[in-house]
Amino acid sequence: MSIRKISGGVCAPKGFKAAGMHCGVRRNKDKKDIAMIFADVECSAAAVYTTNKVFGAPIAVTRENLANGKARAVICNSGNANTSNADGVEKARAMSDLTAKALGIDSGDVIVASTGVIGQSLDLEPISRGISELPKLLSKNGGTDAALAIMTTDTKVKEVAFEFDLGGKTAKIGAISKGSGMIHPNMATMLSFITTDAAITAEMLSKALKEVVGETYNMISVDGDTSTNDMVSVMASGLAENALIDSENGDYAAFKEALSAVGQYMAPMIAGDGEGATKLLICNTRGAKDILTAKTVARSVISSALVKAAMFGADANCGRVLCAMGYSGADYDPDKVSVLFKSSAGEILVCENGCGLAFDEDLAKKILLEKEITIEINMYQGGASATAWGCDLTYDYVKINGDYRT
Amino acid sequence: MSIRKISGGVCAPKGFKAAGMHCGVRRNKDKKDIAMIFADVECSAAAVYTTNKVFGAPIAVTRENLANGKARAVICNSGNANTSNADGVEKARAMSDLTAKALGIDSGDVIVASTGVIGQSLDLEPISRGISELPKLLSKNGGTDAALAIMTTDTKVKEVAFEFDLGGKTAKIGAISKGSGMIHPNMATMLSFITTDAAITAEMLSKALKEVVGETYNMISVDGDTSTNDMVSVMASGLAENALIDSENGDYAAFKEALSAVGQYMAPMIAGDGEGATKLLICNTRGAKDILTAKTVARSVISSALVKAAMFGADANCGRVLCAMGYSGADYDPDKVSVLFKSSAGEILVCENGCGLAFDEDLAKKILLEKEITIEINMYQGGASATAWGCDLTYDYVKINGDYRT
Repeated sequence: MSIRKISGGVCAPKGFKAAGMHCGVRRNKDKKDIAMIFADVECSAAAVYTTNKVFGAPIAVTRENLANGKARAVICNSGNANTSNADGVEKARAMSDLTAKALGIDSGDVIVASTGVIGQSLDLEPISRGISELPKLLSKNGGTDAALAIMTTDTKVKEVAFEFDLGGKTAKIGAISKGSGMIHPNMATMLSFITTDAAITAEMLSKALKEVVGETYNMISVDGDTSTNDMVSVMASGLAENALIDSENGDYAAFKEALSAVGQYMAPMIAGDGEGATKLLICNTRGAKDILTAKTVARSVISSALVKAAMFGADANCGRVLCAMGYSGADYDPDKVSVLFKSSAGEILVCENGCGLAFDEDLAKKILLEKEITIEINMYQGGASATAWGCDLTYDYVKINGDYRT
Repeated sequence: MSIRKISGGVCAPKGFKAAGMHCGVRRNKDKKDIAMIFADVECSAAAVYTTNKVFGAPIAVTRENLANGKARAVICNSGNANTSNADGVEKARAMSDLTAKALGIDSGDVIVASTGVIGQSLDLEPISRGISELPKLLSKNGGTDAALAIMTTDTKVKEVAFEFDLGGKTAKIGAISKGSGMIHPNMATMLSFITTDAAITAEMLSKALKEVVGETYNMISVDGDTSTNDMVSVMASGLAENALIDSENGDYAAFKEALSAVGQYMAPMIAGDGEGATKLLICNTRGAKDILTAKTVARSVISSALVKAAMFGADANCGRVLCAMGYSGADYDPDKVSVLFKSSAGEILVCENGCGLAFDEDLAKKILLEKEITIEINMYQGGASATAWGCDLTYDYVKINGDYRT
């Protein structure tokens, strides 16, 4: 089965247009702050949301709107999360209503999202102006503008698209994402909007999304804080004209593989662009007795402030990796563990049978000075493996978060 | 019941001497790196250990030695944690044996501890020399030297002593501690050695210690990493000549109160001296439906990298507090929560009924520029409360941990 990377982002699949613009939620006029994605036809739709008990008003409204498994549009602003506000739900509903009216669709067919500061009332005036102007800007070339508009402290635009074979037809899938601070397993301040022209039921779409998110988006950690507003949504237009996927058949597997390619592409991109990050960290765990153990260990290592700071300093400190494994709560035998650091500059084994090894410090330094570091852990207790993505902890993380609101 | 602060640290209680010196585990000759505490008589003893699955060899040996509830000496080096080493247990046993021989006591009566780098073989040669010299240095004035010798990246010596009334007698309790990085609930890289002249059974001592640690030492977080080597131990000489405490009677309560005073003194001292910290953060939770909820919320807030970075920047970002509460896993109603920031410069309510309030930013800044910040949370759902202690996340934390081993 082949999956080919193509251009076009969320507009690559048949039936989707997008736009992004500055409406005024943010003061800086050069920063786009509102995005719209619009489908020509009603789509099957699904989403996965933050598990934070405090969740944004947009999450509440989107959950209601997607209850029927249908959607036609995404509206998303950056700059204000519309969370922990007395009038939040009312305003998120207004965003949904205004979008529906501007596009001539049903209000229940809108995916609403907001990202930014929590606990400050959202000014609907610029949002309203933006929503009335966005339909005029919608185009097949608007994916990048939409990707730009949802960014907060992200430094890189995050969009991707793939085409793949699906039941004799060619289908496409595309996505835009935003990440940066407060990203952690369970959808921390991360937004990803995925579009596809595959024909698939809402039920199968939801199932595929949950499975893929568990292996990709939920295996990212920037700082251990799980945010209030995050979601990954997917809309499927069906315009690829493949036979409707309504069971876990071969086409479902093909679709899931393409969806997974989106997640695998976005996860390191989001992690590597964590607030203040200078390095992407990848932790591969192998030889775990089960997947849960593999995932738990990988996430714990990638989330450790001490591991992250050591990687920033290019310090091959295997003790911190062993320590983070140990407090993860996972079930494994510490005396069997091996740890290896690798990058494009080489690889070095730093721990075997649970014990630190003497190693060439110069080579270790050279390896860890690279921009992409992989920590390979083998537990030698079974066949399960997992990957988690993170970033280093840097001066700039502290700087960015020491005064985010001003 | 009155508890009076006195001088003398671990040597204040009757029957204890201490010493600290440089033996050579560390290269810097000006830094003491080995400490000894010695009791004139056999003591009731108890300890609480790290919950990390990867635990130091000294923890394994101390656990064995304390199985009978008796001890007479503490030996502790800094500079090397003797953890994740193939010959670790053997060397920790050698430390115990050498100490016993030097002091003429049973090897099973030694509390062994090590703190420092993980995964590097411990050189017994300097340790051995230190252990042979320390007995000559033992004195009633040696508490501070012992406190100095166990420090790693700590910037302040941590010792305290109290006297208190116990069944018509005056008893004393003293402690030395080390803290700094990798400190988190469940005994992260924190060591505290407590001495008392109260007469109390090992069983009651262990019970009191567990209870007090749960409210104090385990409510500290510096960076979320739970270390491999930490312990809080207590030795009771019985020389205060109070009636032996062998049940949960009034004397037990009086002793526990004094032990708690030690924990209450040490917890903010350890947290405020976290690696790179410029501020002590205190989170008081009130109105929780039960103690577990109160503790879970307080610890989650104090552990959040985003809250910690905001406090470093004196940014009254209540959204981050609400967010950290939300992902804590605690059971409460987000719509009832109030949050208030306070310090010696005043106080300011920033959230009520789960919603952010407009507030005087200048006053908030003034409050948060102080060195000790309290975050007061009320859940309005019951009568339980808790306190957790932490520190801000700073450039220096990253610097210290970016290259700890060199």
